[in-house]
This record gives sequence, C-alpha cells and structure tokens, in this order.
Amino acid sequence: MNNLQSRFKPLFDPKSIAFIGASNTPQKWGYIVLKNLINGGYHGKIFPINPKEKQVLGIKAHSHIWDLPQIPDMAVIVIPAPAVPEVIAECVDKGVHAGLIIIAVCAEVGGDGEKFQKIIVEKAQKGNMILVGPNSNGIARPRTIFFLQMPSVFPEPGLIGIVSKSGNVAASLIRRSVKTGFGISCMISTGNEADLHCEDYFSYLGSDSETKVIISYVEGFRDGRRFFDAAKNVTTQKPMVMIKAGETDAGAEAAKSHTASLAGLEAACRGACRQVGITLVDNLEDLFNAGIGFLNQPIPRSNRTAILTTGGGWEVLAADASSRYGLDVVRLSHKTLAALDEILPSWWNPGNPVDMVADNIEGAMMKSVEVLLKDPEIDCIILLGITEFLESRPVFNKMSPETIEDHLMEINQQLASAFETLREMSHFYEKPVISATEIPFAVGDMEERIFYKLGKIGFALYKTPDTATKILSYLVSYGKYLNSIDSD
Amino acid sequence: MNNLQSRFKPLFDPKSIAFIGASNTPQKWGYIVLKNLINGGYHGKIFPINPKEKQVLGIKAHSHIWDLPQIPDMAVIVIPAPAVPEVIAECVDKGVHAGLIIIAVCAEVGGDGEKFQKIIVEKAQKGNMILVGPNSNGIARPRTIFFLQMPSVFPEPGLIGIVSKSGNVAASLIRRSVKTGFGISCMISTGNEADLHCEDYFSYLGSDSETKVIISYVEGFRDGRRFFDAAKNVTTQKPMVMIKAGETDAGAEAAKSHTASLAGLEAACRGACRQVGITLVDNLEDLFNAGIGFLNQPIPRSNRTAILTTGGGWEVLAADASSRYGLDVVRLSHKTLAALDEILPSWWNPGNPVDMVADNIEGAMMKSVEVLLKDPEIDCIILLGITEFLESRPVFNKMSPETIEDHLMEINQQLASAFETLREMSHFYEKPVISATEIPFAVGDMEERIFYKLGKIGFALYKTPDTATKILSYLVSYGKYLNSIDSD
Repeated sequence: MNNLQSRFKPLFDPKSIAFIGASNTPQKWGYIVLKNLINGGYHGKIFPINPKEKQVLGIKAHSHIWDLPQIPDMAVIVIPAPAVPEVIAECVDKGVHAGLIIIAVCAEVGGDGEKFQKIIVEKAQKGNMILVGPNSNGIARPRTIFFLQMPSVFPEPGLIGIVSKSGNVAASLIRRSVKTGFGISCMISTGNEADLHCEDYFSYLGSDSETKVIISYVEGFRDGRRFFDAAKNVTTQKPMVMIKAGETDAGAEAAKSHTASLAGLEAACRGACRQVGITLVDNLEDLFNAGIGFLNQPIPRSNRTAILTTGGGWEVLAADASSRYGLDVVRLSHKTLAALDEILPSWWNPGNPVDMVADNIEGAMMKSVEVLLKDPEIDCIILLGITEFLESRPVFNKMSPETIEDHLMEINQQLASAFETLREMSHFYEKPVISATEIPFAVGDMEERIFYKLGKIGFALYKTPDTATKILSYLVSYGKYLNSIDSD
Repeated sequence: MNNLQSRFKPLFDPKSIAFIGASNTPQKWGYIVLKNLINGGYHGKIFPINPKEKQVLGIKAHSHIWDLPQIPDMAVIVIPAPAVPEVIAECVDKGVHAGLIIIAVCAEVGGDGEKFQKIIVEKAQKGNMILVGPNSNGIARPRTIFFLQMPSVFPEPGLIGIVSKSGNVAASLIRRSVKTGFGISCMISTGNEADLHCEDYFSYLGSDSETKVIISYVEGFRDGRRFFDAAKNVTTQKPMVMIKAGETDAGAEAAKSHTASLAGLEAACRGACRQVGITLVDNLEDLFNAGIGFLNQPIPRSNRTAILTTGGGWEVLAADASSRYGLDVVRLSHKTLAALDEILPSWWNPGNPVDMVADNIEGAMMKSVEVLLKDPEIDCIILLGITEFLESRPVFNKMSPETIEDHLMEINQQLASAFETLREMSHFYEKPVISATEIPFAVGDMEERIFYKLGKIGFALYKTPDTATKILSYLVSYGKYLNSIDSD
C-alpha cells in the first residue's frame, strides 16, 4: 500500500466512526446520513455523539468524542457551522486522523464562514487529520459496504470512481450507476475542498486498483499546477473523464454562489486539461456514458473506423456522427471487401458502413466483425443492431408475463455471450468495438432490464448511433494522447 | 376537410384493406404486418390476397384483387419486386386509390429496381392512386386504431406526427413515444418516396388538427423548391423538428446505399431548412425531446432566461448550457430581486440562477416562478429540481412494494398538479417553463413510471439541465423565426 492509500484508509475503510450530530429526528441530516450508513450495511463500529440522547437509532450515544472508549478511525460531522472548529479540535485531541464535514458551512454562506473554514483547516492540518468538505454530500465505497452519504442510493461494487465538487451531481452519477448496473468503486462528494482538494482524490483513485476509470465534476482549481501534475500522473494509468463546469459567465456566477470557487480563465484551463490527457465532456449523460465506455475496451491507435450495421437510418446517423466527432470512416481495402463477399449475401452493397443486409446467416455478424478487426487499416468498430442477430426474435406484443420473463432470460444469455465473444476478439486485436442498439421487441421495462444485466457484467451498450460514435471519439482522443506521451 | 385531407383519407383512415401478399408463415413480413394490423385492433374489413391459401390468419383469403366483393379503400403490398407493377395495375383497374408498398423493392437493389419503380409510379399516377414507399416500414394512426407496420409497437393516440425516410428511425421514434407515454398522431415511414414525397406528408400533417408538432428524419430532397414551399407553409402553423441526415461524405454514401437518394449540397440545404423555420437537430434523442418540448409550451419572444434551482452543480450545468445554446441568463431587476426577497429565506444569494436554498416553504417555488414570469425582461424559465418541492419525500430504500406504489401515486398526483399550475401560469404569461429533474428517492423503474405518467397527460420533464436548456433553445429559435415572418 502506498502512502496515499494508507493515509486515506481511515477515510474510506474505517473500522469505527464517530458520528457527531447523530439525531433521532427523521427530518435532520444527522438522522438521514446515519440511517443510510446503517441501511447500507456498514459492518464497523458506530459511535453516535449527541449530548441530549442516550441512544440514536438504537445505538448507544455518547455526549462528547472524548467519552468514547476507543479512538475512532474517522469522524463524520453533521452540526451547525459555529460548533465545527471546536469539534475538530476535540477530534484532533482524541487522535482521529480523518473527518468528513457533511453540513453546509463556511465559505458559501459568507461572513464568518470563511473564517471558520480557515480555522478548521488549520486545526486539522496541525493535528494530522485529513478533512473532506465542508459542504460534502458524503463518501461511499460499496466494496467495503460503506455509505456515509446524504442520498439513499446504494450502488453495487464496480470499477468507476466518482469525484464531484457538487453533491447533487455526485447523486446523479451514483443513481446512474445503480440504474445501469455498473456500480462504482468509490464516490467522493468533495464539497468546499477546504483541506483535501480534488487532485488529492484523483491521486488516491489513480493508485486504487479497484478503480478503472474516474469520472468527475470540477468547478475551479485552487492550485492549478498541483492539479495538472496529479492529473498527468493519473491519466498514464487510467482514463479521467471530466466536466469542467462554471465555464461561462453565468456558470461562474452560479458556481461562486454555491461553492465559493472562482471559475475563471476557462479556455486556458480546458486546454490544459486536454494537454494532460483528461477527457472533457459537457454534460451528465456524456460523463457517465464515457465512463462506462472506457471499461472493457482497448484504447484505439487511431480514428480509422468501420461501421457494421443492419442498414437504414441508423447507419446514416452513425456515418454523419462519425464525421461530426472526427472519426474517419475509411474506404475498405479490396482484401477486406473480398473477405466480406465470402460472408455476406450476394446482394450486399460493398462499402463502409458495411450493411449486412440480412439476418445473421451462419454467424455472419461475428465473422464480419473479425474481418474488420483483422484489417490493419481499421482501428475502431461501431456495431449497430446486435439484437438483429439474436436467435430468438419474439414478434408480438401480447405475451404473458412468464413468456416475457423467459424471453428476457434467453435474450440476456445470448447478448451476454455475444458480448463475451466481442470482448475476446476486441482484446485480441486491441481494437474497440462499440455497440448501440434498441431491443426491438421490448415491452414495459424489458429494455432497461436487459441493459442493466449487461451493465452488471461490465458491458456498455448505447441506445443511439450518435452516443456510440461520440463515446468512441473520446477513446480515440485518449489513445492519441497516450501515443503522444509514448513518443515523447 | 381540405383536398389533401380527403385525398389521404383512404390511406390513413381506410374502412377496408386489400392485403396483397398476406401469409400464414410467421417468419414472413406478409404474416407479421397482417398480425400487427389485427393485434393493433383494426376495426375495418381486411381482404387477404393469396392465391395459395383459403384463409390467412383465420380470415378468408382471395386469389386476386379482382375477386374482391368490394373496392377496398387501400391496398398494402408485401410481395417480391417483380410482381409489383402488375399488382399496381390490378389495383388501379379495381378502383383502389391508395397503396402502401412495404417490401424492399426497386432503386436500392440496383439494376431493374429503378425501372420497376418508374413503371409502378406511372401506373399508379395514371390511375389516380397514391403510393407510400416502396421500402416503407408502414404507416400508423392510433386514433383510428390503424397500425399497418412492420414493428410490433402500438403507441397510444398523441399529438406528435412522425415522418421518416428510414424505417428503423421511424421504429425508434414510435418506441420512444410508447415508453414516454406521449403517443403519436400519425407515423409514416416514407421509404423510397417513389410517388408521395416527404413534403406531401408534411403538408398533410400540417393540415391535420390532431398533429401539434411534426418530428422527421429526412435524407435528400427530390424537389427542393416544392419541399421548402411546403415546409414554409407548415411551420407557420406548427413546429417541424428534423434530422437532415446523410450530410457528410460517409453519411451520403450510406444514404445512397439504402434509399438511393443523393444527399449532396448539405450546408446550403441546412441553411434553407432554417430559413423556412424548420428546427434542425442532430440525433434521435434531441429529435424526440424537441418534439415533446414543443407540446404544451408557449413559444418565447426572446432568449432572455431565468433559471430557478435548488442549487448545486445542476445549477452551474444549466448556466453553462445556457451559454452554450445561446440563451441569455439575464441580470435580474431590482424589482424582481425585491419580490424574491419577500419569498425566499433571508440567506438566499441574490442572482440568476435563482437558488431557492431551502425547501418549498409556503409555496416558495410557485411564487418564485410567478415573480419571474411577471418580469417583462424575462421570456423563458428553466426550472430544476421540481421534486425537491414535493410534500412527501420518502427517504429510505427498504420499502414494501405496496408502500412504493402508494408513494408513486402520491408523487404522480403532486407532480401532475404542479405541472397543471405551471402550464396555466406559463400560458397566462405566454412564456415557457421547461423542467428537468431526477426523482431522488426512486427505486427500480419508479422514475420511468413517473415520467411516463406525466407524458400521458402531455408534460415533458427532462432528465438533465443540459437537455432542458438545449430544448428551450429550440423553442427560442422557432420564436425568433415566427417573429421574423410576422415583421416581414
């Protein structure tokens, strides 16, 4: 374990937690956050601190942290701002080395807030105590069954690390991780970043073997140099996808009011992000979709792309999107065309996109994918309409719930097996294969359930050609960055 | 009823249909399309035409169209290409005035295809028979319980008209209309447009009182002048949202292979679309989201926007997106700030975005919306986080299915009522209020179900600040266009 990992261990893998401000009042965050910790399944020891209660949520409470029978690994602080500095001092005295300040204090309320924040940090740093927040929404680490957070959302263990200055963006992202089945490795709502800054979390997740990609929402940097050094180091190990928000006048105004960081010099800042290999995106959909897109895919060597389709408007949309996002839909070599001639029906119209024109006769789809993967002039593949090639194609809408469940199981198995094969081929040839499809015969929530089950085993399937193409373009840009530092 | 409506009546409201190529073989389109017509609930008379069968799907079959006891209102043709010209001639002889050619024939298969297509059109036009297709995916009109289509998807009656050159794009759009609860007024998969062109359908839906907005996927124009004249006329009556695809070299190549229309001169073409008030979008998500965004919203007079939020990153994202999409997040007047001071807690941070900083105390949200609507310097409102203001906020994840259902009902009622109020205010002040939210406490498919139920009563709720802002920008552009023609 490196220094950073051991320093952060009490924060993300605490064996005991002092809960300062634990409450029996259901409307209070001191109740909700504690309830979430318990409902999330936390195995460690919880010490509710509340001078007025004997028990909180059925757990014996203590009046002060100095009354505790042991030194807790970390303290979570959910009390009004004026009391926080003293509590930090008490934590330090007790020997606590990590703290999370949930409650909205300090800089964003103006006046004495900034003074408080400065005092808190000074006290903590002198006492060798690291602090998340204030104004954090919480932290979570599903693998160790640890959910110390405001939202009541409990993702499963996954490979995506989330770092977000904004609590509601963090919540949006963990909700997505739950709905899509991907889960997360870790979530950190960074809040005001009075002590620990986003770059500390990036470095921590960079060296975390359970995190394969980091998705993040960042507003301003306190120390640009330190940030870019950290990011540069992380992106050599794993992809970082980021929304750099507050980039416009209106956004900066809004950012200031809620976290007190100025969001200036944005163009330069975005340029610098790209120069250290960060994948910048504009919105929540792209942030999450890019995150899952980087899982399970080799990073392509170039933008030379083949599109394999079942034709129609989806094919045209993918070709248009490729052009929009800077992918090169290459002219196929005679050798590749000849190989496709062997596989596809005689009436196929040679070209790229490759329109397979018929059903998956004798495994034509996988064979075509392999022909394209083998072509040294192709580095990326977009595959549209994988479900056209399922063996079972239920046609009608009026099926019993049992029949639907059976079909769902069958489709899941077939899709999972198709994706396994694609993953093997994709890694063998070191070229990504990105897929988008609809489930043509889905009824009710069948489509979501199919996508969810694929997500659970780590496969990203997109819903439109535009999304698949855009996400592929992020992989291409990251590959280009990695090439550029290799050749330095 | 105008001429166009009466000319298209046999096509979209047929009392009887000759089904040429009806089949008892479940894998054939002659079976699937007929089964969809029946399953869809069609009330009219069906005449299966098949020389080899006595019955098809339990309905008495006839050998030839000339054997029918009556003149059918329309004929659907699902037979191989070479036989089509003769069948069209027979239809004309019988006195049929409308036909739909489902099966892929003609231009896209090259060789004799184009010749066939020309013959078909000549025969039909001489006989005063209008033709959809060939290579159409079908047509549908839920209000008259009429689904003559390949996909087994049955949207409810709604206000959105779909016109798509591509069958799979048409299918994508009707699937969305089902999943979101909005339904459709009409779906036309236009196919090769050998006889009827997309502009004919636009004009038809333009004069259709059940269609409030038209969403479309178009590749090339056969007669640009006629197209733009038709579109110009339609956009004075209702919004037209369109993907103009095949715009890039790769896209044009793909478009050619699947529908034989050349997609050239694209930049000029897109410019011309904008000049006749068409809202151009790039992808399926935006196409559908813009379609529902135009329902139930007044068209704004300008881009002057206020953002009402519960703070956090969502607020910053909305502000950034406003700048990206050309909305002006205005500085609020002293009068408006003073009015908000009366409503919001003392610690609110005056500015735009307006961060309400606390719960919906004494109806602060609706009061704030009204203050902003009243401001003559504001023409659009983005409302984020409407669910923060629900009276019931279930907190925990472990609820019984019954409790979840109860909560769902309650949330639906509260949201529906909030949207009713917003709609009334919005129309009174003639300014749109566009909303995005997540359902913070949703579990399973609860969120989809809530959005669906809102869709059923016509309210568009978006899932990210970026989407809401982008869609609002389309309304602004359309308003600008309407202003420009008013002042001509």
